[in-house]
Amino acid sequence: MPQYTIGIDFGSLSGRAVLANVADGREIASAQLDYPHAIMDRKLPCGKALPQDWALQHPQDYLDVLDHVLPLLAASVDPQDIIGIGLDCTASTVLPVCAEGAPLCFDPAFAENPHAYVKMWKHHGAQEQASRMTLLAQSRGEEWLPYYGSIVNAEWYFPKLLETLEDAPEVYHAMAHYVEAVDWLVWQLTGTHTRSYCCLGYKSFYKDGKFPEKDFFRALNPAFENVIEEKVSGPIAALGSCAGKLTEDAAKRYGLKAGIPVAAGNIDAHVCLPAAGVDSAGKLLAIVGTSTCHIVLGTKALPVPGMSGVVKDGVLPGLAAYEAGQSCVGDSFHWFERNCVSSATRHEAAEKNISVQALLTEKAARLKPGQSGLVALDWWNGNRSVLADTDLTGMILGMTLQTAPEDIYRALIESTAYGARVILENYRESGVPVQAFYASGGVSQKNALAMQIYADVLQMPVHIADAAQGPALGSAIYAAVAAGVYSDAAEGARRMGAKVAQTYDPIPENVCVYEKLYQEYKQLHDYFGRGVNPVMKTLKALKKGGNNHE
Amino acid sequence: MPQYTIGIDFGSLSGRAVLANVADGREIASAQLDYPHAIMDRKLPCGKALPQDWALQHPQDYLDVLDHVLPLLAASVDPQDIIGIGLDCTASTVLPVCAEGAPLCFDPAFAENPHAYVKMWKHHGAQEQASRMTLLAQSRGEEWLPYYGSIVNAEWYFPKLLETLEDAPEVYHAMAHYVEAVDWLVWQLTGTHTRSYCCLGYKSFYKDGKFPEKDFFRALNPAFENVIEEKVSGPIAALGSCAGKLTEDAAKRYGLKAGIPVAAGNIDAHVCLPAAGVDSAGKLLAIVGTSTCHIVLGTKALPVPGMSGVVKDGVLPGLAAYEAGQSCVGDSFHWFERNCVSSATRHEAAEKNISVQALLTEKAARLKPGQSGLVALDWWNGNRSVLADTDLTGMILGMTLQTAPEDIYRALIESTAYGARVILENYRESGVPVQAFYASGGVSQKNALAMQIYADVLQMPVHIADAAQGPALGSAIYAAVAAGVYSDAAEGARRMGAKVAQTYDPIPENVCVYEKLYQEYKQLHDYFGRGVNPVMKTLKALKKGGNNHE
Repeated sequence: MPQYTIGIDFGSLSGRAVLANVADGREIASAQLDYPHAIMDRKLPCGKALPQDWALQHPQDYLDVLDHVLPLLAASVDPQDIIGIGLDCTASTVLPVCAEGAPLCFDPAFAENPHAYVKMWKHHGAQEQASRMTLLAQSRGEEWLPYYGSIVNAEWYFPKLLETLEDAPEVYHAMAHYVEAVDWLVWQLTGTHTRSYCCLGYKSFYKDGKFPEKDFFRALNPAFENVIEEKVSGPIAALGSCAGKLTEDAAKRYGLKAGIPVAAGNIDAHVCLPAAGVDSAGKLLAIVGTSTCHIVLGTKALPVPGMSGVVKDGVLPGLAAYEAGQSCVGDSFHWFERNCVSSATRHEAAEKNISVQALLTEKAARLKPGQSGLVALDWWNGNRSVLADTDLTGMILGMTLQTAPEDIYRALIESTAYGARVILENYRESGVPVQAFYASGGVSQKNALAMQIYADVLQMPVHIADAAQGPALGSAIYAAVAAGVYSDAAEGARRMGAKVAQTYDPIPENVCVYEKLYQEYKQLHDYFGRGVNPVMKTLKALKKGGNNHE
Repeated sequence: MPQYTIGIDFGSLSGRAVLANVADGREIASAQLDYPHAIMDRKLPCGKALPQDWALQHPQDYLDVLDHVLPLLAASVDPQDIIGIGLDCTASTVLPVCAEGAPLCFDPAFAENPHAYVKMWKHHGAQEQASRMTLLAQSRGEEWLPYYGSIVNAEWYFPKLLETLEDAPEVYHAMAHYVEAVDWLVWQLTGTHTRSYCCLGYKSFYKDGKFPEKDFFRALNPAFENVIEEKVSGPIAALGSCAGKLTEDAAKRYGLKAGIPVAAGNIDAHVCLPAAGVDSAGKLLAIVGTSTCHIVLGTKALPVPGMSGVVKDGVLPGLAAYEAGQSCVGDSFHWFERNCVSSATRHEAAEKNISVQALLTEKAARLKPGQSGLVALDWWNGNRSVLADTDLTGMILGMTLQTAPEDIYRALIESTAYGARVILENYRESGVPVQAFYASGGVSQKNALAMQIYADVLQMPVHIADAAQGPALGSAIYAAVAAGVYSDAAEGARRMGAKVAQTYDPIPENVCVYEKLYQEYKQLHDYFGRGVNPVMKTLKALKKGGNNHE
């Protein structure tokens, strides 16, 4: 009898689920739902305007995903053969809930309070708190800090929670728990409140079995002293473990068998490694989507400046998993398509009956490296690694009156490749070998031009995993481990993980030009990114002085 | 009996003419023709591709303008009352002609040779020659160099001619004269070949009655030694003088009276001063169009670094006229509209039944200074003053995922205002007072937002002259002087020049923010423009290594 697991990936804009055969990882069925509220970065559903740098989500959207995808998958085979569920989500994507788990924003008393909603990973409202945490941790010589790139990122758990305490104390005091979205979803399915070890390890400074000390939190804000007991409680669910069993109610609602294991919650990027078949040290997986996560496995946990974090057993047992990231990859391509694509380009695409992106890619692919005359800094959404500074912004340089849209489009793609190279060089300089480069995620599947540019800029072959639904397959693998089919995720990766579908090899003449362009990028990166000219911060400060867009 | 003169302005994209009453400058009639070939910057009429940085025009287009506008104006009054004609053109906009004046490109043997066409002012193919001239003139301590900003601009006469000698010797040797377009047009009307003093003074190093020495030209290229006698001969026509009389043939063709005076040719920017009523020292006129020319009158001729030139009696007798310029103003706004305006913006404009530019301006006007979070360097077409470097390129910095088209549009406008301020400060630091700021040209008439931003950035009132046809009226004033109605152009300016129609006063709270933003601009200006980081040149060099756009 075949057996199946379900993996559900909660991305930035949609939830995607697969039903996979546990024997070989073959995808039997899939389903997807775009979040009705998408990303709320201008206003709340009630119309209330949001400050700049905010990015919220609505927890109802996640429940809508479950309602949509689970019955579809359950109906595609005999539900008795579905033996487990695994979930992953972006992180740190967090919400305040009451003791029973209801989101605070569901309470009419808090519906107009932006802090009561889900703060997405890319919510950057807590930069001030993050900067204070960095300074304090540095001055106290906190032992954990170097293992998180020596800089506290505003995208993580504690800055967002401290922002809530300081800017919306009524929300802080009303919440019983501040939970990662994935843990909240596991809770909805199992009735059991757990904390994902992966989220805690990467986003909440949980290292070697402990959080930072009480006096660290007290020094940040006296009311924050007991934050761990007060807001972060709950049993820790190790990677691949069973967090709880599917409740009768949930089973009925979704057409599944009650009591099947639901795996410990996971982070969308990290589950991609087993999904891509990555199972040993020295292999880096870049999950290239709206943003990019670079995760490389190593034999020991070393401090790496500007990385996001390193966690022992964070992805596969017995190996350290290093995470670094780029905050804005596909997002800047979409920004360009939405805001800067001329009518002429749009008409041409319509005439050729192809998408605007396809036309731009086709035209950009005809350019040789260097031909656009442009170089860009890929910081439309700040810089996560290696500068860890959300106040940095984008730049394009080299425009002339002949510059065409495809020139800019290609320059944006190239800038993300340069950003990736900075991360790889930083790993190597810190003693973490990177011997092979794997890519998954939407951009890796859809944009051959981008992947060729990555190979040329990185001067390494780029291997693309054969999986349209990377993270969801990864979650299905962890579900199989939680269900006891495999002893651990490494075995799951070998049995269920995807094979390499395609490899982009560096083209020697392109490598040569990109080597020069990368040196130019690096010089601008350091000039604007390392404080020589802090103009980006000055402009942001002036912008905050003015009003927001209506 | 009323008397009239005709002024014709040959701009970058069209020829515009007015018939003015000599008593008060009142415009009686006007006519305009867009050049059929516009600007040829990608290919010749035969389809031959042009190198990057080229900008050519077709001399037939200028003749088409005469054929179109002159009969219309002649028919609007009794032709017997039209007593003179004045012409102005962009400069240095030059073409090779045979001994009788026929353009070389009219000869089928040269129709496919790009050097046989008109090289427009903004043709930048002679940068290499210009750089060599600068180095040579500096090393020889040429006395004239400091009066031309100490840098030879690739847009001037001799670099373009030397480029022709070195890259197309067959064209160089076949031409009898290398003439400014305006002198060629005067020649067509009068049968007399003259050289405009204004063009020679500003574009050909003609100072205190002489050109640079033979050994300067020989050191550039032995074949260039006798360039003055061989290619630059012809009587010099002083400002406001009569260059010749309208021929019988021309009179018949256009319906005018034969024998009326045609004034010495002039430069489009310089004729604007009398047209705007500018008649004394300390007043600066900015002609703000696709590019901007800043001309200020002074009591003596002093060297000013990075200016385009200073010429005694260059505009009004008895005063020195200083010229500086910005290569790209309206051009960058048009570039943005053409290449980077989203369909959404275009649809919104269509729904509101206004132009895209009007919508962008409306939206940009709602932003406060600093609110876009952006700063740009306005170098899409290089930098004329004060850096005099055509290899510099544009830059925009500060983009986030929230950046909207109107943010970029406003940043482009602001960048041109900062560029203007650099020029004003440079004049003042060099001992040339600038006490009042006048603006004319298309942008000054049509873009109130831009003019308010200029007032706020410059911290001075901006006075707009009441004249839709600035340069053409200026040429009509010089025609009246050539016809003997007025003793000189200063008297013509007082009698026929426009009055101030509108004044934009600085808004104190905007001044405060723009002062900060200008300091950021200035730092980037010096970093990228003065060689600290030569990335723009490196990128241009890499671009030239690749192929051009098809």
